[in-house]
Amino acid sequence: MELRDFQELMRELYFHRDTQRGVEKTFMWITEELGELGRAIRMKDEEGIKEEMADVVAWLVSLGNLLGVDVEGAVLSKYGEVCPRCGKIPCECPFP
Amino acid sequence: MELRDFQELMRELYFHRDTQRGVEKTFMWITEELGELGRAIRMKDEEGIKEEMADVVAWLVSLGNLLGVDVEGAVLSKYGEVCPRCGKIPCECPFP
Repeated sequence: MELRDFQELMRELYFHRDTQRGVEKTFMWITEELGELGRAIRMKDEEGIKEEMADVVAWLVSLGNLLGVDVEGAVLSKYGEVCPRCGKIPCECPFP
Repeated sequence: MELRDFQELMRELYFHRDTQRGVEKTFMWITEELGELGRAIRMKDEEGIKEEMADVVAWLVSLGNLLGVDVEGAVLSKYGEVCPRCGKIPCECPFP
C-alpha cells in the first residue's frame, strides 16, 4: 500500500469531517489514539496494538490532509536510504 | 512509497538501536516527536510540520519492528475502501 494512496482514501472517507473538526481537535485525536496504543502495549493486547497503530497512521494522514501536507513526500524528503544524521547504513550515530 | 518498504528500511537503519532502546523508550520517542509536531503546528512552521510528521511515521514503524507488527497490514486490516464504523463512502457516522 502506497502511503499516498492511503492518505487519499482517508481524504475521500473523512475530509468533510476533518474540516468540520479542525486541526487542533484532529491533533488531539492522534494523541488519544497514541494513548490507546500505549495502553494496548501495556496490556500485551496484540490485536489492540495493531488496531491502534492503524488508527495513529489514519489520524496522522488526516491531519496531513487538513494541513496540506503530503505525508509520503515528507517521509521521502527526510529518510532516504541512509540515516539522515550520520549518512550510514545501518545508523552509526552515538547511542542513544 | 509502500509503507511496508519504509518499515523495512527503518529496520535496516535502526533495528540494532531499537532493540537496545526497547519498546517503552521507543514509545516515548513517538510522544516526543508528536509534541514537536504540535509545536510546529502552533508556530506555523511548514517545514517543521513536514519533518515532524515524517519522524512520527518513522518512529511508529520502528515500534512496529520491535513489536513484530506489520504496520501496513494493520492499516489494511482496519481501513478498506469504506468507513470501518458506518460502512459508507464518505463516512456518515454521527458527528463528531
